[in-house]
Amino acid sequence: MTSLLPLVEAVDSFPYVPNDYYFTFVGHNGQPLGYMVPEVATAFKTCSASDKFVVNDGDKTVTMGGELDTFEKRSAVVAQLAEEWRQKDPVVAKGWRDELYVVFSPRTVPYFSVERAFSGVLGVVTYGVHINGIVPASKSSNGKTKMWVPRRSKTKATASDNVIKECYEEGGLDKAFVEPRISSAGVISYLCQPYGPKGHAQPEVEYIYDLVFDSETEYEPSPVDGEAEEFKLMDLDEVLQRMKDGEFKPNCTLVVIDFLIRHGHITPENEENYLEITSRIHRRFPFATRN
Amino acid sequence: MTSLLPLVEAVDSFPYVPNDYYFTFVGHNGQPLGYMVPEVATAFKTCSASDKFVVNDGDKTVTMGGELDTFEKRSAVVAQLAEEWRQKDPVVAKGWRDELYVVFSPRTVPYFSVERAFSGVLGVVTYGVHINGIVPASKSSNGKTKMWVPRRSKTKATASDNVIKECYEEGGLDKAFVEPRISSAGVISYLCQPYGPKGHAQPEVEYIYDLVFDSETEYEPSPVDGEAEEFKLMDLDEVLQRMKDGEFKPNCTLVVIDFLIRHGHITPENEENYLEITSRIHRRFPFATRN
Repeated sequence: MTSLLPLVEAVDSFPYVPNDYYFTFVGHNGQPLGYMVPEVATAFKTCSASDKFVVNDGDKTVTMGGELDTFEKRSAVVAQLAEEWRQKDPVVAKGWRDELYVVFSPRTVPYFSVERAFSGVLGVVTYGVHINGIVPASKSSNGKTKMWVPRRSKTKATASDNVIKECYEEGGLDKAFVEPRISSAGVISYLCQPYGPKGHAQPEVEYIYDLVFDSETEYEPSPVDGEAEEFKLMDLDEVLQRMKDGEFKPNCTLVVIDFLIRHGHITPENEENYLEITSRIHRRFPFATRN
Repeated sequence: MTSLLPLVEAVDSFPYVPNDYYFTFVGHNGQPLGYMVPEVATAFKTCSASDKFVVNDGDKTVTMGGELDTFEKRSAVVAQLAEEWRQKDPVVAKGWRDELYVVFSPRTVPYFSVERAFSGVLGVVTYGVHINGIVPASKSSNGKTKMWVPRRSKTKATASDNVIKECYEEGGLDKAFVEPRISSAGVISYLCQPYGPKGHAQPEVEYIYDLVFDSETEYEPSPVDGEAEEFKLMDLDEVLQRMKDGEFKPNCTLVVIDFLIRHGHITPENEENYLEITSRIHRRFPFATRN
């Protein structure tokens, strides 16, 4: 098997050895929250809330002022800036969803909320949920584990206790079906630069769940909210091949790689970069996180 | 549930923010291999092979000389030093096993071998295998997943393709029993300081395998090589409690925590430091590794 490391490197693409290109976004409490490109840091000097932030070109920080001392005040300022960016930044305008992510600081404490489309500009940690729909080898028609693969995989800003809701919205699976079959299986994290080496930094977290079907036919997932177009049941060889062919969203490949590692399909014997891949998809951020 | 993070911090104890206390051990090719305490770096200046290493107090490095350009030459020098340390260092003498670890550089390429007891002095990455013996909930007398726990858990310098041998040596389980029941389930990595904040650095890697038993009684593991004294079948609540009570070897707690995460017993809902724990037990080292 050729190594899957390049697929991981394409997503966990932010350098491990720090350079001085990015600015660090810092809370009023001194805790780092994310990484910003210099253009964004500069824009903070002239934005409508410029009096509430300190941009320091020497130590490369953009720090919230001490008066931003509540969740509400911070969220209000960030909402104002998000709206401002929406007017001038086509990427933010296009990505706008009226959907709020929560940023945490210190760990587990909600610090402010931010429109999804603006989170990438600030470079703060975002959270998603991914559910692997699985027919185990023992229940599959060809004796091989199969996976329900949506035509367009998707991640959303849901908390992990909304997994059941997510199963309905994404695949039309109801609570009575999902609850006895689903289990938490870990979390992956990576720091990507979706717009290249000098583009926005996106630290992302995906909570992973495995949903085990009793047969290939008992319940066919079908899209409800339209984020997936259709679901196809593939065995893992096909999943792996399509992944290598670039048919999956890049961050979804990491979810699949994590699944294949946990279930013994990618092993230290068949993957020469096994350890590197495992640590890269469990990257530790220098930022506080949800949990 | 109280957070398990302190158990992780006790093992993955090496600081994430670099300080200038430790020296970096560097190969003749310029690649970092491990971290050394200053006392060891100083001892390299007067050891019997001092002409083969360059100790630089300025940039805090101990570098192999260019003449150490083969696996054999490097292994011979390291063996000579190991013997020398054995004479003067009671910890090395006590830990001596006549067992060689392989150090890799660049990734996946064997660079030199080193006596197990001396690896901690050099601060190089070591590798072990850990097998979780499991009776699944559906096969267990009380409907709860159970785990075979050795009185003294153990890790050895075996490569992962020696897992079956390990199952025999540790638990008396033969190949015909093990092969259809075992699967690779991931790898954990952490950087510990077993002798406290100024002690030796030990970057460790444990390849993880789950071995699933069909019933509680079909085959009771019993020690062959004496590294485990006895095996006891415990349900996961008991495992968790004993772990919290400090009855397990510290690094074995990380293996159990990894198992509990993968199998949905530790979840984002019941563990407030879920993400931190997951990334800490998959630490990326600044050193080349086996795979």
